[in-house]
Amino acid sequence: MPRILTLAGAQTGPIQRADTRAHTLDRLIALLESAAKQGAQLVVFPELPLTTFFPRWFIENTQELDTYFEREMPNPNCQRLFDRARELRVGFHLGYAELTPEGQRFNSAITVGPDGQILGKYRKVHLPGSVEPRAGARFQQLEKRYFEYGDLGFPAFRGPTEWHRAIMGMLICNDRRWPEGWRCYGLQGVEVMVMGYNSAAYDPNGGDGESAELRTHHSTMAVQANAYMNATWAVAVAKAGNEDGSGLIGGSCIVSPNGIVVAQAKTLSDEVILAEADLDDCLQGKEKMFNFAQHRRPQHYRRIVEQVGAEPPA
Amino acid sequence: MPRILTLAGAQTGPIQRADTRAHTLDRLIALLESAAKQGAQLVVFPELPLTTFFPRWFIENTQELDTYFEREMPNPNCQRLFDRARELRVGFHLGYAELTPEGQRFNSAITVGPDGQILGKYRKVHLPGSVEPRAGARFQQLEKRYFEYGDLGFPAFRGPTEWHRAIMGMLICNDRRWPEGWRCYGLQGVEVMVMGYNSAAYDPNGGDGESAELRTHHSTMAVQANAYMNATWAVAVAKAGNEDGSGLIGGSCIVSPNGIVVAQAKTLSDEVILAEADLDDCLQGKEKMFNFAQHRRPQHYRRIVEQVGAEPPA
Repeated sequence: MPRILTLAGAQTGPIQRADTRAHTLDRLIALLESAAKQGAQLVVFPELPLTTFFPRWFIENTQELDTYFEREMPNPNCQRLFDRARELRVGFHLGYAELTPEGQRFNSAITVGPDGQILGKYRKVHLPGSVEPRAGARFQQLEKRYFEYGDLGFPAFRGPTEWHRAIMGMLICNDRRWPEGWRCYGLQGVEVMVMGYNSAAYDPNGGDGESAELRTHHSTMAVQANAYMNATWAVAVAKAGNEDGSGLIGGSCIVSPNGIVVAQAKTLSDEVILAEADLDDCLQGKEKMFNFAQHRRPQHYRRIVEQVGAEPPA
Repeated sequence: MPRILTLAGAQTGPIQRADTRAHTLDRLIALLESAAKQGAQLVVFPELPLTTFFPRWFIENTQELDTYFEREMPNPNCQRLFDRARELRVGFHLGYAELTPEGQRFNSAITVGPDGQILGKYRKVHLPGSVEPRAGARFQQLEKRYFEYGDLGFPAFRGPTEWHRAIMGMLICNDRRWPEGWRCYGLQGVEVMVMGYNSAAYDPNGGDGESAELRTHHSTMAVQANAYMNATWAVAVAKAGNEDGSGLIGGSCIVSPNGIVVAQAKTLSDEVILAEADLDDCLQGKEKMFNFAQHRRPQHYRRIVEQVGAEPPA
C-alpha cells in the first residue's frame, strides 16, 4: 500500500513594500484554495511571504522594523489563512519574522496540520548577509543584523495520521545549501523536507555577474542532491520576480528521494506546483545506499563539529 | 592571473578477470599518453583500475585474493605507468587494492606528482556491500569482506608549484555520495577533488529495477552538488561497461565549483575527458556563499558525529 501525501508548493510573485498585509494574505489564501482544489494536503509557502523581503533595507527605526514581525502565530494579521486552511482540511508551511516576548528576533517557519495545530517550528540557522550595512549600496542583505541565529537546531517532527505520520523537517532559504542541516534531519529519518526561499536573481548592486539561470541551477541542484543523499522528498518554494527593484529567482520545485525534479514552477508569479509523493519511495535509499547505520563512519567526521572555518594544509 | 590546472579523467572500459595485468597497464599508459598530449597535468584513473572489480566475486582462497592486491606502490606490476608519467611530467591519481606489510587490506588511492612523488594517499571510508556473501546470488558486493574501513580520514594535501600548490582531496566511489567526506575536505579549503568509481549500472541479480540512466544521474548530481557546496573543482572517473557479465555506468565527469559539468564521457569505453580548471574559480564560493567561518553553526551539527544510524522521532 503506497503512503501518498499530496504536496504543493505555493510560489508567490513579488510582495512589494507598498502592498498591504491584507492584500498579500488574500494572495496566499487564493494559492491555498487553488492547491486544495487540486488535492493538496500540505501547501508550502515561501520564506517571509507575509511582507516584502525587508532585510534588503537598512531600517534604523525599531518601530518601523517591528511592522515586519509577528509577535505570535497565528495573530490577527494572518488568522484568515489559518481559518481557511482548517476549513479546507489542508495543512501549510509558512515562513515569518518572529519577535518573541523577550524581544528576540528570528527568521522562522511553522508547519501547520490540517486541523490547524502547529506541528513544528523552525528558526533559520544559516543566516546570510551581514550585521553592518554596506556603505553606499542601494540594496542590503542584513539578515545577520535583524535576526539572531536559530537556536532550535534541526528538529524533525511527525505529521498527523492522514499524512501517514510522515517524518518532516524544515529549512529556510540559505539553509538548503548546507548539507549539515539536511543530514541532521536525515539522521532523524526524514521523509518530507519543506522550505521557502528569497534568493536574489543577480547581485542587485552589480557585483559578481552571476546570472539568474546559474543561481536557479545552484538552488535546484542543492535541493536535488540533498534530497537524494538523505532519501527524502523535498519541497522548496520561492518568492519570485522583481520585488521593490531587486530580482528574485523562482524555480520552486518538488523533488523525489531520487533527486529528480517532479514539478517545477515555470513563472516568476503566484503559481501552484503539485506532486503526489509516495513516502515509501524513501525506503530504497534509506535501506540500501544510505543505510546510515551500516555505512556511516562518524569517527572521521569530527572536523564538521570541531572547526568552523576552513583550515588549509601547510 | 588565473591559476590554471589542466585536469583529465581517464575513463576505462571494462577490465575483465581474464585480462592480463600487462595488457591492462598498456591501456592505462595509452590513456595517460593521450591525456598528456592534450595538455593534461593531472590524469585521474578509476577505482581499482589495475584489475577487474573483484569484490563482485566470493573468493575463498587467500592466495587467489592476493593476486588482486598491491603490496607496495609502485611495484613491478605498475612501474611502467609511473615511469612513463614522470617522463611526460604528468601527475596521476590511481586506485588500487592495498595489502600492508601487517596484512591489512584497504581500497586505496594515491595521487602522484609530475616528478613521480606520491603527494597523498587515501583509504576508502564508505565501503558498500556486505561481509557475508548473498546466498545464491551470481554477483556479490563484498567490499566489507575484503577491505577494512579506511583509517586515514580525509587528509587534504597540496600539489606542487607547477599545479599552483592546489589544495587537493581524494574520495573513492561510494564516498562521493556522502557529504560528510566532502565537507571534511571543504573544511581544509580543497580546490580539486579527485575520485574513481565502479558503480553497477543495474542490480546484476535483478533486484531493485533502477536503470543505468537513473544511477548515472545519482552519480553526476552527487558530484555536482558537493563540488558546489564546497566550492571546489571535482574529477570523478568510472570504470565502465560490461565487466565479467556485470554492467558498470560511465558518466565520468569534470565539474566546476559552480556544480556545472564542463566535460563528461560519452562512451562506456577507454576515453579521455579534459578541462582547463582555473583554481581561482573556487574563490567566489569560498569567500561569499560558502564562507564557512562566517556562516557555519557547528553547535547544531552534533548529530552528525554523535549518532551513526537514523533515530526517528517518537
